[in-house]
Amino acid sequence: MSYCLGIKTQDGLVMASDSRTSAGDQVNVTQKMHLFETPGERVFTLLNSGSLSLSQSVITLLRLDFNAGRGLAEAPTMYDAARVVGETIRRVSDLDREYLERDGLKFNVHMLLGGQIKEESGELFPPELYLVYPQGNPIRATSDTPYIQIGENKYGRPILDRGIRYGQTSSEEAVKYALISIDSTMRSNSTVGPPIDLLVYDKDTLKLDGHRRMHANDPDLIAVHKQWDMALRKAVQELPVIKFGDSVVSDR
Amino acid sequence: MSYCLGIKTQDGLVMASDSRTSAGDQVNVTQKMHLFETPGERVFTLLNSGSLSLSQSVITLLRLDFNAGRGLAEAPTMYDAARVVGETIRRVSDLDREYLERDGLKFNVHMLLGGQIKEESGELFPPELYLVYPQGNPIRATSDTPYIQIGENKYGRPILDRGIRYGQTSSEEAVKYALISIDSTMRSNSTVGPPIDLLVYDKDTLKLDGHRRMHANDPDLIAVHKQWDMALRKAVQELPVIKFGDSVVSDR
Repeated sequence: MSYCLGIKTQDGLVMASDSRTSAGDQVNVTQKMHLFETPGERVFTLLNSGSLSLSQSVITLLRLDFNAGRGLAEAPTMYDAARVVGETIRRVSDLDREYLERDGLKFNVHMLLGGQIKEESGELFPPELYLVYPQGNPIRATSDTPYIQIGENKYGRPILDRGIRYGQTSSEEAVKYALISIDSTMRSNSTVGPPIDLLVYDKDTLKLDGHRRMHANDPDLIAVHKQWDMALRKAVQELPVIKFGDSVVSDR
Repeated sequence: MSYCLGIKTQDGLVMASDSRTSAGDQVNVTQKMHLFETPGERVFTLLNSGSLSLSQSVITLLRLDFNAGRGLAEAPTMYDAARVVGETIRRVSDLDREYLERDGLKFNVHMLLGGQIKEESGELFPPELYLVYPQGNPIRATSDTPYIQIGENKYGRPILDRGIRYGQTSSEEAVKYALISIDSTMRSNSTVGPPIDLLVYDKDTLKLDGHRRMHANDPDLIAVHKQWDMALRKAVQELPVIKFGDSVVSDR
């Protein structure tokens, strides 16, 4: 499994991914965060979950096109960029789906796309965050739903649901939420694992210079893990004691 | 969906269940906590997830047998009691499985059994907690894994993983963890819902007098919900700020 998430804040974007991949009982480390950048003009961060083979093909085709000035390099808006990712997923589907399904395997690849583009008119619209499905259709994060997860998303969701409010949660805080969300997931599911890639994009800067990779022994990661555990235990202790009486249990 | 859990502590047992059931888009309230008690001799709490029809059949057959002095009423040990639940699931499987599978439906029922029995010799062994699978085979909670969940278990798991330690977490604390775990699940999955049934069993008392049912508007439930949200936000604020630099992203 994988676990990746993106959070849209008033400051820009926060993206985070784990690095564990598995094929059968073989476990590997593979970076799932991919950066595409034309400084001053357009920046994209892509995160992937699902089949690693399919994800690699999608990223490779996107990269070849980007380096040749096509695809993500010429998408006029973020919506078009999400469509480029979708079209690339469909190209890989044309290449591989039939052969996977013949052997009972599913065509499974999900991509998270965060980024910002200075449009040809010179206008700079806010950064956007998209999930692109295996079918190629995109869905966008909104102020009501400012974060999107892919992969093993349930363990890490409650902390996001409780904490994140668009317009109130800063990028600095969102990084902490992302880290706790991934840490919780790694603890409960051994197929999600370090290192963790974190990226903060400050809106309107049009450059990707806020990246950090945290290995399992990263002192900050260990500190967050320990401090969070202690904070939770303390918070539980401070909750009011729940009183019990012999109330009616109908089925008895 | 359902979400139920049981926690084994040094003080006894804590059991908790939600009450939402759905058939298609129809939503109902159904208690999933069932008590069986011969005060001074044996106590059982059963929680169910999966098909409501199948769960009702299992509970009804167990109840008919219990009232007639058979089944759970005469199981000599908790292991035998778990086997009684398993045998009853197999009876319902004999009744219904074939007809469900004919229409593409799965035979799905999971039962959590917590309880304690004074054995015929007069000996009183500690309370035990079992999960009984749809196949009828049981699995027991241990001091390493002192809690068991059934139903929609992922959202509510990280808080248990972080907080609960057998021998350290009292029943009073375990109740709070259970409540937060269910509250988190209700928030993230609309098919899990109130009222919440909570039961605390104090070991060696051999009576079930610690039950509480919390509706959505229960002041304690609302207080826990609010206080927990605030505590989490505060704890996030107090985490160290994660620093970023332009570290190497290999895939760029």
